[in-house]
Amino acid sequence: MALTPTASLTLDSIFDRVAPQMTALDRFMCEQVEVFQPEVRAMAAYCLETSGKRLRPVLVFSSGWQGDGVIVPGLVRIAGVVEMAHLATLVHDDIMDKAELRRSRRTVSREFGPETAVLLGDALFLQALHIAACFPTTEVCRQVSAATRCVCSGEIIQTMRRRQIDVSLSDYYQTISLKTAEFFRVSCLLGAKFSGFNEDFAMAAESFGRHLGIAYQIYDDLVDFLGDEHKIGKTLGTDLSSGKITLPLIFWLEKLSESERTLVLNALRGEKPFPFAASVESMRHLGIAESVMQAIDEELDKAADVLRPLSGIGAVDMLSQISAILKGQVTNLSRAAASSVAGWFFLPRAVFA
Amino acid sequence: MALTPTASLTLDSIFDRVAPQMTALDRFMCEQVEVFQPEVRAMAAYCLETSGKRLRPVLVFSSGWQGDGVIVPGLVRIAGVVEMAHLATLVHDDIMDKAELRRSRRTVSREFGPETAVLLGDALFLQALHIAACFPTTEVCRQVSAATRCVCSGEIIQTMRRRQIDVSLSDYYQTISLKTAEFFRVSCLLGAKFSGFNEDFAMAAESFGRHLGIAYQIYDDLVDFLGDEHKIGKTLGTDLSSGKITLPLIFWLEKLSESERTLVLNALRGEKPFPFAASVESMRHLGIAESVMQAIDEELDKAADVLRPLSGIGAVDMLSQISAILKGQVTNLSRAAASSVAGWFFLPRAVFA
Repeated sequence: MALTPTASLTLDSIFDRVAPQMTALDRFMCEQVEVFQPEVRAMAAYCLETSGKRLRPVLVFSSGWQGDGVIVPGLVRIAGVVEMAHLATLVHDDIMDKAELRRSRRTVSREFGPETAVLLGDALFLQALHIAACFPTTEVCRQVSAATRCVCSGEIIQTMRRRQIDVSLSDYYQTISLKTAEFFRVSCLLGAKFSGFNEDFAMAAESFGRHLGIAYQIYDDLVDFLGDEHKIGKTLGTDLSSGKITLPLIFWLEKLSESERTLVLNALRGEKPFPFAASVESMRHLGIAESVMQAIDEELDKAADVLRPLSGIGAVDMLSQISAILKGQVTNLSRAAASSVAGWFFLPRAVFA
Repeated sequence: MALTPTASLTLDSIFDRVAPQMTALDRFMCEQVEVFQPEVRAMAAYCLETSGKRLRPVLVFSSGWQGDGVIVPGLVRIAGVVEMAHLATLVHDDIMDKAELRRSRRTVSREFGPETAVLLGDALFLQALHIAACFPTTEVCRQVSAATRCVCSGEIIQTMRRRQIDVSLSDYYQTISLKTAEFFRVSCLLGAKFSGFNEDFAMAAESFGRHLGIAYQIYDDLVDFLGDEHKIGKTLGTDLSSGKITLPLIFWLEKLSESERTLVLNALRGEKPFPFAASVESMRHLGIAESVMQAIDEELDKAADVLRPLSGIGAVDMLSQISAILKGQVTNLSRAAASSVAGWFFLPRAVFA
């Protein structure tokens, strides 16, 4: 079977198109550092200057797309708000996970201590909401505060469910809808609304973002088992060792024999560790990646479907391209999934160069 | 010298007058619990149901005073926003201070673990900002997010300055202006603005709140040395042991002999502890409380002064009464200061019953 044209593309093409907007965002984020008290600036800069993917801003710019090279200051600010709120959640997540490294750099918690990291995360949240509150309408602030509260609730629920082995499929989808899909959703919604697109498109963009966010988190959870540690640049196997029940685990548990299942459940309960290499081997043998890829594919289809009735807006093309590219990559990845998930399909190729 | 009439009053009279508004606030806070995800509600309720003094809401209601028994739903919501943001900062402060008890109850961090407490504090911040964003104007959200960011910056600066012995008087005032006075300021400002009082009064109320907040924090810092542990209900002497330079310490260091000074500085640097009882004894001997009370008195005078040109608004009377009552209590306390700071002069008498 020949590859479809989009299947051979990567997100590079999208990242290239939004490059001018992303440069404007970088400038905006640098300016934000100056808003903090002089004593706090260097630390705020450390939090904001990350080599992160800035996926959420890409979604803001795509769903509010006005044409190549057109930089709308309001969209840049919205992208900044969502990214800053997202970075704040990462600062706090890394405290909880006692993570030392993020993107090959010390986490904020490791660099300045967990106590200061709590406060720095708070200051970032509040600055994000403050920028949001400086729009003439309260909608930005209302949407972002509601979304961020959902993200925190999702993290709390996930923390409460650690080592609980009776997490259902619907529990899993609820958690990732809150902790991950909310920021994707709000990015697409606010991008569309701020660009003055009609209500139909705004609602479609919102739904698109939600499904894309769910797909992204499922992929992230798969990578924790079957990723290439070298290429991904983070420690794998942490979900199994910390007792976090994710989709790969749910599918895996379903396919295990009674005796193997007991061993894995004991590991999830924290009673006796299960060797990570053995879990990877078993998952490959049982074709877990294929089932998980199928679930990702379904979400990408749902994302594409909500856009289908719409046309004549450049933003629809941008979002449609994103889901088509990712769908193409899932197809490619599925073929190779028996070995390992080679890259990070939400990243432009340049990141691996 | 006969006591002035107000000097014999306590804040009870103010708390009595705002009682109907405070009841409405309690109801509002209970309703807020329902906004959180079902899994998170019990924890959110634990955070919100405190026996705290709710001083900031008292200021919102007083500066927006519309008459006895008049309950303005918007003012109740503003009071709820400020109180919720304040409670969020306490949840995070208690993580940093590794505090076990607050108001004779386990801290949120002790009850649910520091990891969950980080997220619960976040969720409270975001819910506060969300309520703020539901006003028709962006001003509430803008003011509260800016104030809360200042509170966090103040806490960060204070954390950075721990065990630094060269903290100046102006450093001290800067820190407490940020970490404490900002919420007092914004409470008074938003109360006045929301009630539609003129710009002159709103600006005066803002300034009043700032000075009152500074007075409050200086008093709080004095209590850490000379308070009556039984009556205050918290462990004293923590500022000395943790190397936090406060006004009593600054005044004390100025009056010590060279050799005593060295001992105290060593203790502040964390090199060798200084017996707390000896510090209390020395402070009493050197009349430190009197100097600190003088500084409090100056702030209360400044607070009263900004209101003096204004009249004809019930809110001016409410705020003026608050500063007059506190000033009367400082006078009384100063007389007894050679022994110890007996009570908590920002509290209604009923708390000690």
